[in-house]
Formats: sequence, structure tokens, C-alpha cells
Amino acid sequence: MLTNRRNVRIQWGDCDPAGIVYYPRYFAMFDDSTTALFERALGMTKYQFLQAYDFVGYPMVDTRAKFAIPNRFGDDVVIETAVTGFRRSSFDIHHRLLKGDKLSVEGFETRVWVGRDPEDPSKIKSVAIPQKVLDLFNSA
Amino acid sequence: MLTNRRNVRIQWGDCDPAGIVYYPRYFAMFDDSTTALFERALGMTKYQFLQAYDFVGYPMVDTRAKFAIPNRFGDDVVIETAVTGFRRSSFDIHHRLLKGDKLSVEGFETRVWVGRDPEDPSKIKSVAIPQKVLDLFNSA
Amino acid sequence: MLTNRRNVRIQWGDCDPAGIVYYPRYFAMFDDSTTALFERALGMTKYQFLQAYDFVGYPMVDTRAKFAIPNRFGDDVVIETAVTGFRRSSFDIHHRLLKGDKLSVEGFETRVWVGRDPEDPSKIKSVAIPQKVLDLFNSA
Amino acid sequence: MLTNRRNVRIQWGDCDPAGIVYYPRYFAMFDDSTTALFERALGMTKYQFLQAYDFVGYPMVDTRAKFAIPNRFGDDVVIETAVTGFRRSSFDIHHRLLKGDKLSVEGFETRVWVGRDPEDPSKIKSVAIPQKVLDLFNSA
Repeated sequence: MLTNRRNVRIQWGDCDPAGIVYYPRYFAMFDDSTTALFERALGMTKYQFLQAYDFVGYPMVDTRAKFAIPNRFGDDVVIETAVTGFRRSSFDIHHRLLKGDKLSVEGFETRVWVGRDPEDPSKIKSVAIPQKVLDLFNSA
Repeated sequence: MLTNRRNVRIQWGDCDPAGIVYYPRYFAMFDDSTTALFERALGMTKYQFLQAYDFVGYPMVDTRAKFAIPNRFGDDVVIETAVTGFRRSSFDIHHRLLKGDKLSVEGFETRVWVGRDPEDPSKIKSVAIPQKVLDLFNSA
Repeated sequence: MLTNRRNVRIQWGDCDPAGIVYYPRYFAMFDDSTTALFERALGMTKYQFLQAYDFVGYPMVDTRAKFAIPNRFGDDVVIETAVTGFRRSSFDIHHRLLKGDKLSVEGFETRVWVGRDPEDPSKIKSVAIPQKVLDLFNSA
Repeated sequence: MLTNRRNVRIQWGDCDPAGIVYYPRYFAMFDDSTTALFERALGMTKYQFLQAYDFVGYPMVDTRAKFAIPNRFGDDVVIETAVTGFRRSSFDIHHRLLKGDKLSVEGFETRVWVGRDPEDPSKIKSVAIPQKVLDLFNSA
């Protein structure tokens, strides 16, 4: 299935007093990578596809990361991202953050596709992932 | 006029590889302090007052900070916050971040009171600050 | 074993365009909670205990979070944090983020105790958790 | 003098519940831009030039930003960054964040060049900017 690769430069502000990436920052990098994957598959920005598919987002249900090799500011890494499974209204993502040819950090996500709750627009509710989204991922 | 004081513990994740606060974090601390000031004056949370006054927020127009004494994780600081001037649809805020009795960081903000643009709800538009808000600040 | 509880106010800046907490922020909250637990057990700030025990920190090896109930700005939550297991040079942490009496987010961490590598001070190396640290947790 | 331009994609996680960039994030973008400017002028990464010039960094003394046009996730902006003045141990930076051909946010920085205090290595101290740094900027 479609794998997106993007280059990330580790910044000074990503790092903590130990001089290495403050680990919550990796989750933000992975979130940006999930966005990049969907933007590539759907052929539009997240702002555009939230409107086109009338949905609110894909909030996280469960996420995990394993840290093997630390990174520090000035390092250039690559993040490879793919969907590893679609279900009715949820899906799984796998991220591999590579430093050269070594696996530095691995990320796993389970997200749910949500819209506004028709009975209370201040709340969100899971909905089926649109067939067109599945088709675009399969044909990518 | 009303001055709000709040205690902040500097965290490991607020700091950069030099071991001191990464300065963009001070702006987030000041934003939280502005929220705390309004919550105290209006007697409700920001979530509640955005709904009660039918407005979108008070985005920043101009902000400045001066840094005199660095802080590192484990430091306890106090942030004193006050409005220094209200105009029709904008206002000024002054923050003093104190380390013991010394001024460590000073922040200045000019914000504008905005609502949804009635002609295009995807856009925001400045509106007059409600009289009740001014009254609550004056009587605080 | 020792459980630390701390109150956290969800801030505007913790939230994303869906109006709920941007999930990487929960990992930062959990990191602060792990610090608070160690500070309470060891009776000193993180800055102080890094010096007292001559170590560099406890970087993350593996972390996971499960998200059940979203939180938005203005919400007050409680985070309960405990060590669930100490090994020679690593340990496990469990966080429970509660909204009222409901479990909103759960976090799991495996961290390693590291010092400077004596052969290359620019690198870090796992070391045994000091007996005094174990004793202080057991007697807390 | 040397002006560095870099492209930045605004991310979901940069934005707040109003759907636009949470302004402290602009300061992080500007900090990355100052790093990029120095990396280009000095021909090495920040990690490398901190070691090559034996200094700790260029902490902020005074910074200001003016916000004219908001940005939301999915927007592509350009940040133009230049030094506007070097003094003995401090310097000024100007950032222009452009959305298309319009000035969206403007940033101003005064930073100081610091090393470890020889009398107390846990403290930092301003030092003269190395002549080689000035030469590299002038010849860029």
C-alpha cells in the first residue's frame, strides 16, 4: 500500500536539556506525517479534505512509540508512513523514523474517523470511512 | 486595575539544550496567564466565556518580550498579569514573570476582540469589546 | 507503591482546531507527571536529583497512550502516576488521567536510567538505578 | 546582507481551537529560521557550529512580532530572515513571514552571543561574536 516518505530536520527547539529530541515532539512529527500521507492519497490539503469529506478529523484512540536511537538538533531524518489496516470507522498507521539506514523511532497509531454528532454539534461521533477515501488509498 | 498572579513550575520539556527555557514557551505561559486573568474577571472558564459572549477569541496583534534572567527546569516563578488599556475592540496586557523578587521576563501584548465575520463565517472580524466585560474588569 | 496525583488545567494552547487536546500534549503532561513523582519520592527537584545522582535522565524506551474521553480547554483533570516496576536500569510508569471519576487517557512508559558514557561524554549509556532511589520509593 | 528564505507548511498541530496558528508557534518557526540563516552563513549545522566556535548559543534578549494576516493548517508560507545589525556580543534579526506576496507576520529579535562563564560553568556569559562569523556573513 501507499507509503509516504518525508525528510525532517531536527531543530534546537525539538530538544531538551539532555540535548536530544524531547519525545512528545516525535508524536507531533508522526501526526504531521499522517497528514502528509492523507494529503498525498487524497490529492488535497487536510484543510481541504476536512471540508470535502465533511468530517472533523481522525482523533487518536491508541498510539505507541519505541525509541531505539536518539536524535539531536541538526540531524536529518526520514519518516516513512503507511496505513496498515482500514476498518469501518478506524484505521492503523505505522511510522518508521530512519537515521541513515537505521531505525531510530517507530510509531503506531489507531485513529477513528469522526464527524459532528448530528444530535449535538458540540460533540464528535465516529462515522464510516468514505468509500472514496479507501479507493484513493488502494489506487495510489 | 485587576492584577492576576499565578505560580508556574518550569518543566524539563520547557527547556532547550542550553538547559534554560526555550523562549517560545514563555509566550505560551503568558497566553495562559491572559486566559487566567479573563477567567478571574469574568468568573467563568475561557470555554464558557467564548460561548457567553459569542466571540471567537482575542488573537494577538503585536507582542513583545524582554528576557533578563534565564530560568531552568525545577524553578518556580510567579507571573503577574494585568490589562494596561482597553480600546473599542483591542486591549493591552502586561506580564511580569518574577523569579523570587527579581524581574526575569517581561511580556507585552496587544490583542483584538474578534467574532465570526457575518458575511463569511470561515473568517474572523474585530468587534467592540462588550460593555459587560469592561464593567467586570472595572469592578474586580 | 507511591502514587502521585496532580491537578492539570487544560489550556487553549493545548488544543487543536477540533477544540480538543492535541494528543502529543498528553505525553508532555505525562512527562511532567513522571518528574513530579520522582521529585516527591526523592524529595528534591529534577534539576537537583540529576546532580545528586550524577545522571543525565531517564529517556523513554517505549510509551503508549489510550484515549477514551477527549478534553477541551477549561477542563480540570487529575493525573495519577505510579511506578509499576523497577528493573536493574529501567522502570515502568503508569498514568491515569481522570476527568471527574472517569478514565479519560491512560499512559504507559518504559524508561531507562542513563549517565554519560565514560568513554565518550557526548553519548549516553544506561546505568543501574541507584539503591537509594529504590529505597526512597519503597519507603514513600 | 545575506537573506535566507525557507518554505514552511503550517501544520494541524500548529493551530489552536480558532483554527489559526497558535502565535507562540511563530516564535519557534522564527527560531528555526535564525538557525537556518546561521547554518547557511557558517556552512555547518547548529550542532556543529556550537562546537566549532565553542559557544553555548544566542539566547534571546528582546523579541517582538506583529501579526497582520492569520494562517491556518495547510497554508504554505515563506519566511525571509536577515541579520539587521551586529554589535560586539549581540545582534538583531528581522523575519518576514509571507503568505503569497503579502506580509503575514513580522518578527524582530535581539540576541546575545554567550559562552560558559569560566568562573562558573553552570552559568552563561556574553562574549564577543567571533571575527570569523562576521566575515562569513559579510562575504555571503
